[in-house]
Amino acid sequence: MKLLKCYGFKGSVYPVNPNRESIDGFRCYPSLEALPEVPEVVLVGVRAALVPGVMEECARLGVAFAVIFSSGFAESEETDMQEEIVRIAQRGGVRILGPNCQGLVNLAEGIPLSFSASLDTERRPSGHVAYVSQSGAFGFASFAMAADAGAGFRYVVTTGNQADLDLIDFARVLSEDPEVRLLLLYLEGIKDGSRFLDLLRFTRSRDLPVAILKVGRSDVAKEAAKSHTAALTGDERVWEAVFNQYGVLPLSDADDVTDVARLFGVSKRTKGNRVGILSTSGGAGIIAADSCASAGLAVPALSPGFRKEVEAFIPPFGSSLNPVDMTAQVINDPQGFRKLLTLMEESPEIDMILPVLSMITGDSGRQMALDLADAFETGKKPMACCWLIDDEHGREFRDLLTERKVPVFAGLRRAATALARLWQWEGRSDLPLETGTEGAKPRLSELPSDMTEAEAKGLLASYGVPITREKLCRSLAESTAAAEEIGYPVALKVMSPDIPHKTDAGIVALRVRDEEELRNTYGRILEKAVKAKPGARIKGVLVQEMVSGGQECIVGVRRDPLFGPVIAVGLGGVFVEILRDVSFRLAPVDRKTVLQMLEELKGLPLLRGARGTPPRDVEALASLVEAISRMALSEPDLIELDVNPVMVLEEGRGAVAVDALIVRK
Amino acid sequence: MKLLKCYGFKGSVYPVNPNRESIDGFRCYPSLEALPEVPEVVLVGVRAALVPGVMEECARLGVAFAVIFSSGFAESEETDMQEEIVRIAQRGGVRILGPNCQGLVNLAEGIPLSFSASLDTERRPSGHVAYVSQSGAFGFASFAMAADAGAGFRYVVTTGNQADLDLIDFARVLSEDPEVRLLLLYLEGIKDGSRFLDLLRFTRSRDLPVAILKVGRSDVAKEAAKSHTAALTGDERVWEAVFNQYGVLPLSDADDVTDVARLFGVSKRTKGNRVGILSTSGGAGIIAADSCASAGLAVPALSPGFRKEVEAFIPPFGSSLNPVDMTAQVINDPQGFRKLLTLMEESPEIDMILPVLSMITGDSGRQMALDLADAFETGKKPMACCWLIDDEHGREFRDLLTERKVPVFAGLRRAATALARLWQWEGRSDLPLETGTEGAKPRLSELPSDMTEAEAKGLLASYGVPITREKLCRSLAESTAAAEEIGYPVALKVMSPDIPHKTDAGIVALRVRDEEELRNTYGRILEKAVKAKPGARIKGVLVQEMVSGGQECIVGVRRDPLFGPVIAVGLGGVFVEILRDVSFRLAPVDRKTVLQMLEELKGLPLLRGARGTPPRDVEALASLVEAISRMALSEPDLIELDVNPVMVLEEGRGAVAVDALIVRK
Repeated sequence: MKLLKCYGFKGSVYPVNPNRESIDGFRCYPSLEALPEVPEVVLVGVRAALVPGVMEECARLGVAFAVIFSSGFAESEETDMQEEIVRIAQRGGVRILGPNCQGLVNLAEGIPLSFSASLDTERRPSGHVAYVSQSGAFGFASFAMAADAGAGFRYVVTTGNQADLDLIDFARVLSEDPEVRLLLLYLEGIKDGSRFLDLLRFTRSRDLPVAILKVGRSDVAKEAAKSHTAALTGDERVWEAVFNQYGVLPLSDADDVTDVARLFGVSKRTKGNRVGILSTSGGAGIIAADSCASAGLAVPALSPGFRKEVEAFIPPFGSSLNPVDMTAQVINDPQGFRKLLTLMEESPEIDMILPVLSMITGDSGRQMALDLADAFETGKKPMACCWLIDDEHGREFRDLLTERKVPVFAGLRRAATALARLWQWEGRSDLPLETGTEGAKPRLSELPSDMTEAEAKGLLASYGVPITREKLCRSLAESTAAAEEIGYPVALKVMSPDIPHKTDAGIVALRVRDEEELRNTYGRILEKAVKAKPGARIKGVLVQEMVSGGQECIVGVRRDPLFGPVIAVGLGGVFVEILRDVSFRLAPVDRKTVLQMLEELKGLPLLRGARGTPPRDVEALASLVEAISRMALSEPDLIELDVNPVMVLEEGRGAVAVDALIVRK
Repeated sequence: MKLLKCYGFKGSVYPVNPNRESIDGFRCYPSLEALPEVPEVVLVGVRAALVPGVMEECARLGVAFAVIFSSGFAESEETDMQEEIVRIAQRGGVRILGPNCQGLVNLAEGIPLSFSASLDTERRPSGHVAYVSQSGAFGFASFAMAADAGAGFRYVVTTGNQADLDLIDFARVLSEDPEVRLLLLYLEGIKDGSRFLDLLRFTRSRDLPVAILKVGRSDVAKEAAKSHTAALTGDERVWEAVFNQYGVLPLSDADDVTDVARLFGVSKRTKGNRVGILSTSGGAGIIAADSCASAGLAVPALSPGFRKEVEAFIPPFGSSLNPVDMTAQVINDPQGFRKLLTLMEESPEIDMILPVLSMITGDSGRQMALDLADAFETGKKPMACCWLIDDEHGREFRDLLTERKVPVFAGLRRAATALARLWQWEGRSDLPLETGTEGAKPRLSELPSDMTEAEAKGLLASYGVPITREKLCRSLAESTAAAEEIGYPVALKVMSPDIPHKTDAGIVALRVRDEEELRNTYGRILEKAVKAKPGARIKGVLVQEMVSGGQECIVGVRRDPLFGPVIAVGLGGVFVEILRDVSFRLAPVDRKTVLQMLEELKGLPLLRGARGTPPRDVEALASLVEAISRMALSEPDLIELDVNPVMVLEEGRGAVAVDALIVRK
């Protein structure tokens, strides 16, 4: 109630408490039913055992929304009681935020429905960031710290136990507000991947940046997140793939919340990654340049013409190279700094501006702060300012800059990282393809239960995946005939549904050169199969063309419990086995996406042609992966697929699946 | 003069200025010679052109030290004038700090010899950090910010142009003060690697932690550093190797300066990497756990017995797992937090404590701040505290903690990284071997100028490096005889000083199976040599044993202009060519160091035995590298050595240098 007053809420406020006459000057009512009108929202702060009764009242009256602050539900293993209040609410058409949440605040219209101490201040002007957090304490605390640093928020919602409305519901509705410039989420887990992807599609359709602090990256944190909410935390590499695919900015700390809220809350966006550094200390300028480079930003040397213009405002012992070292002498030219800022703003050589000031104090500091704020307000280029100064001498300047929305930093790494996030957003990839059901009839269910490589590759082929020429043979005679047709050298593989790992069992023979060798080999590998697993069902011997001279790759599919089929692509051998050098995306992926996936691989040079090898047919690989992605979406029973190896031949010669293993429901 | 007064300097202070009667109440003298006594230190703030005259006076009077603030010397390309003042000073026995520096401050004894605005405050108590910076502005600015955050400094020195005394001189003398607990350096470059290594040996002999902000990691910053000072910036990978080898903590930002100064400035050291997290917000606790994991720290689940003790002080909907979620209920039990801190301090399961508080305000916040400060003062375990709160509600608590030296953070990543640095210091490797001249007579100079693989490997062998059995042959007859002796299969390589890259030229034949094949091959590769480089000097054909079945590795030496021979070790093939997966150390390295180098390699599993291959003889590889390191130190003319490949055979079977290329002066 104190907060509602403080934020100037204009509507009616009715305290309800049977034991009080009045609260804080408001007349108090004994029950909801005793109120002079039906409230639009009921804030519930009674102890858990009383909540069902309150919800009954809400349901009877037709209250639209209840914000339940009370704890003691699912988070305390009182799931029954939580289910009960949801049942009551649903019956009466009441939607719930909470329980066990800190509520929400709508700063645009001055409506705090929360008890958070972070709102107990007059210094929370409305801005352009919408923040939805699954943690009440962290959400409001990080909001308060970001607001201190000059970030302007429009909405903050903490969702607690999410018994009814959840993070996605709020994120979606807040994203519809055209004044929102950044959707910020603190996320422990979700229950429905497709609703989450729908949200991301919607925000992308609006070109609304989304930044997510997804916790539970480490095992111990994952465990803690599970005990903290009931939501699924999911596989970290899959989350990374989703963020990558949908252009979500990943955050990992409260500091990140502050920095994206500051940078994206203003309307400035960058057109490139070229940073102009203006420093009063050579040393700090160099650290800034290192920090930019580490963050993936460029600090281009300025052109001779531009340097000349810059040199008019710096002393001869400064540097116009970039970092531009203005030296502390800049304080002696009252126009100099302002002019240099204008030059940077107007130069086509620079996309973002990073002024780095050191111990500039007193009137000079004040003037530079004003110059910076003016430049920020009138300019279009993003700016992050570092001011290396202690509180006693510099707090005034930092406060002035913060007041006027200039993102000001103490550390250079953090400033550079913040600018880099703007650039990262510009580099977002295209919205992924729509998933959609293909309408195709699943074929996997028609395959026999004793499926082997032969059937798996048959299925792949039916989806347009190029596979090796091969024939499943039941006799030596059949085998020699098949080899003759395919052409020597061939590979022989014993097909048994009971021996999926053929190489380990020694039941594969490669580079069989002629009929004589085939005759010798045939019996030997069958014998080994019987030895490897006595009683194994043997379906025959697969006679297969030998594909050589290509780069071995692997392509895989895993069905993620949250997000469905995930496509994996990587190089074979040490790259996958030792280095785990694999790129992931949700299906569907098209050729263009596959090419982006390949760009992430450390082993990419081997596909592009390195170490004296020719460039490989990456286009064919892309088509092959696209076909596998189609198959993954069309086959709901496909749990796991490993195509290993895929041989990627010289450019123009294609890519071919050499072996495949399917795990199905 | 204002600063000298402010810090209560007890000695005599004489302003010198021919145009003034007095300055700030002190009687002013027209010249140094007019002073009533010879000063111990002269602070020089006149314009550059007048400095030589002042130095003449200093020299005449026998002044011991001059601190020259004046700019306009080497940094403005006025190197002549800088050399002049050094000449004058040396003649008179005057030692110089500067020119173009901001001087120094001795906070232990209250002696500021500086004009930095950062000292213009009464809030700079003495502590235990010695800071030497090659940048005046950055040095004093980062000092001031760190001091704001509670770090206690003992000395700050900025070295400017280092015309005489340099960073290493000051670092060395300050390291001798037993009250110094951390040596902090801002470093752009040095001119003499061995003096720098001597410094690091000295600090290590004292077990004094050294943290260095070395700038110029990126190319653009390297360029800027060159224009900023005249020092050599050096190869970044070599600096990394040096830091690694000598246990130097690498920093890259002003924030890092603050954090190491806070953490190492107090006497707490850690015994392990196990962090106990106490949080009032489940969400923030989870982020803390993720941050610890990212920083290489463990957040172990607490034992059942310990959990029981913890559970006595947290509500049932909290968690005793670690992160311990105390929930905000902790404010209702005035003893609870204090007890939990004591439990963490006393538990053998935890090495460091990370309390994470959110919006705890008012009296509760005050009490928790006091509990934290008390726990920090009485406890022995390192602690980093995160308090996620805005200024209006929380500044008071942060100030209280800072006042009492508790490192308090707003971000969780930064807190975890700070604790991780304490652990990193504990994991420092042993002090490297003394370099020392081996007394051995260099042999490289005795080798012919038209040296080939054969001579290079002969040299390796003379240092105890195992090489392939081989013979340089001048005729086919000699070759067949040699092959017979060595045993087929053999390798044939044409030896020409003019064709160092043999494989590219096609003058290597591998796996020559018998005499017939040798006869066919011999002429062919000689022909190719003539074709590859008409007029090339052919010294013969090297007949060599074939070594197969091992893991290919590479061992290299490069002579670094600053630090001398640098040893490189890595796996061969894609690991070196595509992934640059190579570990570096300064020579000398012993077997133990080589094993540490191997631990850094991504491809290590291949040596340890992965993918069905047997473990390799890493001990033999270590001995081989040790021998090469000895050779690198004994051969001053050796500029570059590539031993590629070294075949590392199965465990117990050794490692052997198969090819080698030497570049010499």
